[in-house]
Amino acid sequence: MLSNRCEALDFQVMDLEKYLGEAVSDVDGAMDGFLPTLDERPGSIHEAMRYCVFAGGKRLRPVLCIAAAEACGGRREDAFPAACAVELMHTYSLVHDDLPCMDDDDLRRGRATCHKVFGEGMAVLCGDALLTEAFAVIAKSQASESYSVGEMVAELALTGGSRKLIGGQVLDLEGEGKALAMEELVQIHEAKTAALLTASVRLGAMSAGAGEDELEALTRFGHALGLAFQVIDDILDVTQTTENLGKTAGKDAAVEKATYPSVIGLELSRKEAGRLTAEAMEALEIFGEKAAKLREIAERMLVREF
Amino acid sequence: MLSNRCEALDFQVMDLEKYLGEAVSDVDGAMDGFLPTLDERPGSIHEAMRYCVFAGGKRLRPVLCIAAAEACGGRREDAFPAACAVELMHTYSLVHDDLPCMDDDDLRRGRATCHKVFGEGMAVLCGDALLTEAFAVIAKSQASESYSVGEMVAELALTGGSRKLIGGQVLDLEGEGKALAMEELVQIHEAKTAALLTASVRLGAMSAGAGEDELEALTRFGHALGLAFQVIDDILDVTQTTENLGKTAGKDAAVEKATYPSVIGLELSRKEAGRLTAEAMEALEIFGEKAAKLREIAERMLVREF
Repeated sequence: MLSNRCEALDFQVMDLEKYLGEAVSDVDGAMDGFLPTLDERPGSIHEAMRYCVFAGGKRLRPVLCIAAAEACGGRREDAFPAACAVELMHTYSLVHDDLPCMDDDDLRRGRATCHKVFGEGMAVLCGDALLTEAFAVIAKSQASESYSVGEMVAELALTGGSRKLIGGQVLDLEGEGKALAMEELVQIHEAKTAALLTASVRLGAMSAGAGEDELEALTRFGHALGLAFQVIDDILDVTQTTENLGKTAGKDAAVEKATYPSVIGLELSRKEAGRLTAEAMEALEIFGEKAAKLREIAERMLVREF
Repeated sequence: MLSNRCEALDFQVMDLEKYLGEAVSDVDGAMDGFLPTLDERPGSIHEAMRYCVFAGGKRLRPVLCIAAAEACGGRREDAFPAACAVELMHTYSLVHDDLPCMDDDDLRRGRATCHKVFGEGMAVLCGDALLTEAFAVIAKSQASESYSVGEMVAELALTGGSRKLIGGQVLDLEGEGKALAMEELVQIHEAKTAALLTASVRLGAMSAGAGEDELEALTRFGHALGLAFQVIDDILDVTQTTENLGKTAGKDAAVEKATYPSVIGLELSRKEAGRLTAEAMEALEIFGEKAAKLREIAERMLVREF
C-alpha cells in the first residue's frame, strides 16, 4: 500500500514537472514570436528587452494563466496572449524596481540587472517598452463569448496601474524605514504581488470565456495565493543565501523594509503562508478535477522549489 | 475690399481660438474624469500624475485627434478616450525623457519637471502609471463600424513601442555627440514625434469609423506634420530664450545633439518646415471643407503661437 502511494505521488510530481516544462516552453515560444527581433531597429533596445524576458524566470504568472484557462475548459493557445502579457508586465516592473532610484539592486535571477548591463537610461526605456509590449500582446487576444478584447485590456491596465501594481511600489518606497502595521503591509502585498497573480488567473479565465462564478472563485484564489507567495518571499529573504535566491538576500532588513517576519515574526509568518494557501485551495473547489494543475502549482509555490 | 478680407481673416482666427478653447476644455474635463483622484491611495502618485497632466500643455495631440474624428464625420465625444490616451502617452514620454539618466531637464512647460518636485523614483513610477493609464483609457473607446477596441489598443501600443516612440528616444540617446546624416535624423524624428502625431489623427479617425482612404490620407498628413513640427522645435531651440520656450533653450547644442539646423542650417530648416507643411495640407484635400480645422491647426503649428 505505502509503496503504491509513493509511486502514485511520484507520478503526480512527474506529471507536474512535465506540465510545467511544456507550459513554459509554449510560453517562451509564444513570447519569442511576440517580441521584436534583434534585426529590428534599434537593435540595442530589443537586445535589452530579450535579455530581461529570457532570463530564466519561472514563468509562474503565465503558467497560472494557462492552468486557469484550462480549469475553465479553455484552449491553451487562446490564453497565450494573456499569458505573455502578464509576464511582460511582471518583467517590466522588475526592471524598473531594480533601478538605482528605486530598490537599487544589482542581481536578478542570478544575473546582472538590466541597468547594470545596458545603463540606466536604457533600463528605463526597456521597462517602458516591455510595458507597452504587454498591451500590444494582450490586444492580440481573441474575444471570447463572454469577454471582449477591450475588457481584457482594461483588466491588465487596472492591475498594472497606480491603484494596484504601481501603487504598491509607491507604498513600499514610502514605507521604507517606517514601522508598518500588519494592515498596511497586507495592502502593499495585495497591490504589489496579489493583484498581478489574480489578473493572471482572471485573464486566463476570460480567454476561456469563463462564467461569473468561475471568475469570482479565481479572484479569491489569486488573492490568497498572491499574499501567501509574498509571505514566503519575505521569509526566504531572511532565511536564504543570495546564491540560493539568485538575488541579493537580506535586502529587506538592510533597507529597513517592513516584512511579515519583521512585523509578526518568522513562525507566525510560516503559519500565515499555510493558512493563505489553504484559503486558495478552498476557492478552487468548484472546479473539481479540472483545477488539479492549479492546485499542484499552488502547493509547489508554498515550498518554493518551483 | 481689403478691410472686408481682414475682417474675414479675423473671424477665422477667432473661430480657431474658440474651437481650440472648447476642445482643450473638453479634453481636460474628460481627462479629469479618467484620472484617479487624490483621494484614491496612494495619493502621492495621483498628485504627481495630475501635476504632469495638468501642466498647461497645449493639448496638440488630443485636439488633432478630435479634429480628425470630426473631419471623418465622427462625434467629438466618441474621440475622447483616444484623445486623452494619446495625451497621456505624450505626457509619460516627457516625464521619462526629462529624468537625470535621460535628457536631465529641470524645466518643462515653465515648471519644475516631475523628478525635481517628486523625486526620481516617483517620476519613474509616475511615467509608468501615465503610460498604463493611456491603455486603460483607450480601452474605454466604443468599437466603431470599421474598427474594434482591440485594433485601437494595438495602434497605440505599436506607436508607443520600441519600434517607434521608445525606439526614437533610444536612437536619440545613442546619437548624442555623433555627427548624424540627414536620413538618420529624419528616422529619429519620425519615431519620436511623427509617430504619435500620426497615431493621434488615425485614432480619431478610427473612433469615427473612417474609411481606408481617409485613414491613409491622415497617415500622410500626420507624418508630414510631425516632421514639420520637429523641424520647428529644433529651430526654436536655437532661436528662442528659455523664458519664451518654457523649457531650457540651447539644450540640443549643449549635449551636441544633431538637429535640423546643425545638419542643414537654419534657413534650409525653415524651408523644410514649409515644404512639409504644404505636404500635410495636400494630404487633407480629399476631406474638403470637413478638414478646415485640421488645416488651420497645422498652419498654427508652423508659426507655433499655438
